[in-house]
Amino acid sequence: MDKIRLDFNNMMTDFVGEHGICEGDIRKLEGKIDAAKKAMKDKRETGKMDWRDLPYNQDEVVEEILQYVNEVKDDIEAFVVLGIGGSALGPIAVQQAINHPYYNELSRDKRKGFPKLYVADNVDPEKLVYLFDTVDVTKCLFNCISKSGSTSETMSQFMIIKEMLEERLPKEEAAKHIVCTTDKVNGNLIRMAKEEGYKTFYIPSGVGGRFSELTPVGLLPAAMCGIDIKELLKGAAYMDEICKEGDIYKNPAYMFAVLSYIGMGQGKNISVMMPYADSLKYISDWYAQLWAESLGKKYDNNGKEVYVGQTPVKALGVTDQHSQVQLYTEGPFDKIIVILGVDEFKETITIPKIYGDIPSLGFLGGVTQNQLIKTEQTATEYALLKSGKTNMTITLPKVNEFTIGQLLYMLEVATGFAGELMEINAFDQPGVEEGKNATYAMFGRPGYEEKKKELDERPAKKDKYIIR
Amino acid sequence: MDKIRLDFNNMMTDFVGEHGICEGDIRKLEGKIDAAKKAMKDKRETGKMDWRDLPYNQDEVVEEILQYVNEVKDDIEAFVVLGIGGSALGPIAVQQAINHPYYNELSRDKRKGFPKLYVADNVDPEKLVYLFDTVDVTKCLFNCISKSGSTSETMSQFMIIKEMLEERLPKEEAAKHIVCTTDKVNGNLIRMAKEEGYKTFYIPSGVGGRFSELTPVGLLPAAMCGIDIKELLKGAAYMDEICKEGDIYKNPAYMFAVLSYIGMGQGKNISVMMPYADSLKYISDWYAQLWAESLGKKYDNNGKEVYVGQTPVKALGVTDQHSQVQLYTEGPFDKIIVILGVDEFKETITIPKIYGDIPSLGFLGGVTQNQLIKTEQTATEYALLKSGKTNMTITLPKVNEFTIGQLLYMLEVATGFAGELMEINAFDQPGVEEGKNATYAMFGRPGYEEKKKELDERPAKKDKYIIR
Repeated sequence: MDKIRLDFNNMMTDFVGEHGICEGDIRKLEGKIDAAKKAMKDKRETGKMDWRDLPYNQDEVVEEILQYVNEVKDDIEAFVVLGIGGSALGPIAVQQAINHPYYNELSRDKRKGFPKLYVADNVDPEKLVYLFDTVDVTKCLFNCISKSGSTSETMSQFMIIKEMLEERLPKEEAAKHIVCTTDKVNGNLIRMAKEEGYKTFYIPSGVGGRFSELTPVGLLPAAMCGIDIKELLKGAAYMDEICKEGDIYKNPAYMFAVLSYIGMGQGKNISVMMPYADSLKYISDWYAQLWAESLGKKYDNNGKEVYVGQTPVKALGVTDQHSQVQLYTEGPFDKIIVILGVDEFKETITIPKIYGDIPSLGFLGGVTQNQLIKTEQTATEYALLKSGKTNMTITLPKVNEFTIGQLLYMLEVATGFAGELMEINAFDQPGVEEGKNATYAMFGRPGYEEKKKELDERPAKKDKYIIR
Repeated sequence: MDKIRLDFNNMMTDFVGEHGICEGDIRKLEGKIDAAKKAMKDKRETGKMDWRDLPYNQDEVVEEILQYVNEVKDDIEAFVVLGIGGSALGPIAVQQAINHPYYNELSRDKRKGFPKLYVADNVDPEKLVYLFDTVDVTKCLFNCISKSGSTSETMSQFMIIKEMLEERLPKEEAAKHIVCTTDKVNGNLIRMAKEEGYKTFYIPSGVGGRFSELTPVGLLPAAMCGIDIKELLKGAAYMDEICKEGDIYKNPAYMFAVLSYIGMGQGKNISVMMPYADSLKYISDWYAQLWAESLGKKYDNNGKEVYVGQTPVKALGVTDQHSQVQLYTEGPFDKIIVILGVDEFKETITIPKIYGDIPSLGFLGGVTQNQLIKTEQTATEYALLKSGKTNMTITLPKVNEFTIGQLLYMLEVATGFAGELMEINAFDQPGVEEGKNATYAMFGRPGYEEKKKELDERPAKKDKYIIR
């Protein structure tokens, strides 16, 4: 069984020195850890963490997805996700991890007959217009993902695309080019889908955006590109069992959360995720949302102002050794660096034995790129250690659906557990409302007159603070 | 003239409140600012900042590049950069800013006859093998970029590709598929280039990697994809003039540095760059190296241990409103958020007037995506302001070669100036040596026996700190 592992030696004072964490720090948290364990258990049992059951309760959904993929895949050139936040980051992360890095440039044959995948996750007008340069909309299947059906970004794209399709195709035919992933009962999108006859998959009502990758939000795009979604869920289920372990020294998710929590208390307000594998690059993007949006909170559970949260930073090894590692080794002691490693790559490539007489190149001859990337990873861990910078490593024996399922689920549990330790609500996002409301007000949406007034009355900018 | 502008209203206490900066804070720095101005002037005059002259002294180089591009472009399908750090980040940032976001997927015709562009900036074996799935090496031109010719990552890729080419083509023909960008005199690569007859462009010896985008490092890949490199340099020259302004209230680079420096002193150890335009997304990656590697330093100019540096974070508007903005608004007061805005996009797309009866969607009807992205940017600036989070905005009237040249040059000057204020050396990177040396030692490179011994003797990891 390919099981992922967590090595936190370089987090500990025994190794990293004074800026590290000692076992006593962990022991001191015993009461808090027990309370967090209990809260996690209670929330799961009382239906407040529905994402935890996703590995188990989707047999029917999975069959429906696979059948749908089978029905439609030959008729479309590209599958286009219209989604933002978790609806985009999850699908991108899994596609990039499992499939060919140049997937969309391959022939249909090399893609094993599956369509291309695009994810439109911004409202940049250039990006959208240029997408239409690249694909023929009448040969695309558009997957509109929005639980509420009122996400401005996604729905505005949807409105544009719906009209384009209906201009080019008979209405009934156009409807076949749209598939919705939304709430089963509430919101605009489910109503439209029923009226127009769009194919629909459901997001369980208790699962929030950043925890939704293992719902049809992520499963449909993955299956559409030939990714084995059953294995993805199996990996998550396997990790769920591991995460039931009460001893935190045997529970990677809990230990990850505990170390992060103690680190935050030491002023480490930055959480770097640095995969040493291009395939895992976008796991960092997905994690950045999960960690930031869950733990970045103004109030704790008692309503006290706390302004907490660790800022995620996306890096990539070895590439960022030539960009960020100077700062990581020599800069402030303000980070926990989480390295993602891979034991076994899918490909091997050997550096030829030439330039044997050049000292700075000769040693590379006969070495594989696999050895080179692994050795540089070890060297970076060592350099960080030597400069007293806390780091830990999560290793995937191989990158496949089963290990990615484990990794995503482990980080989700770690995030939930960190939220309990911090005594905040990891599952809401009140801080995004202000910007949304200001947007509505500026567009004159009815009901936002007060906000409009507030905006109109804000003090004028000072010209001396603008350099033109 | 399209001039970029800096709006720092939301950095100031008059607007953002207690966590902001007041004019008095800036006045107090007067002496330090004067000293920094003098140091910048002196360094330039004594040839210690050769990158500052790049907008002026490359007429011949530019002509040679354009001529070379003209000669070779029709014969190749793809131009492949082998480079890491600045040699990759600069070319990617400019390509993404100026050219079509799906450039490599377009027909040759839509690419105006220019080849595809790939940048191989990692030693991941999968990525390299998969690149060979995607392109025919005998139809590629490989641009090996390394000043010293001893960058392990780049040179190992070069060795693999050189052998592949020579297996498939007569040696003389193979040599035509390689172009080197390197030092004119020193290092392995220039020697090899001369021996093998490779076409070569030079990196001025006084220009470091992260300041090299306006040398052939960046100019050759840009010109090869049809980007107007003369305009890029013109933009940089235009900004250089602006940066000669002594009054920091009229000098955007100096003001950017001063505000960042004061922010760091207030504990803001994070610098977020958040473009509201997909085209500018990779400017953040380029900036992340520039800012991190230049300012992340252990020692100050007097040799005192200081462990300074602000950690750059890459974000993207509006996308990351659904990922990072919850943390930015509600989390700690530990960031300066630099927004990049665009006045005028190259394309316009209008949201159709449908769903007029649905309150959460009706207001979108008839609005352009251009208005939507701009409005959301303003709304986010407002939400950040309202939550007391310092932010400033750099606006490009349009995204083109001239404004990108300005932006890159402005950020370079800002970085240099910040280094002076911090009293550190912004132009070295001693912190990357430890990892390099450890890599050499692990591969048994002669001369690294001591380091090998040190590594062999490091304490064994504790098994209880590994969860398997």
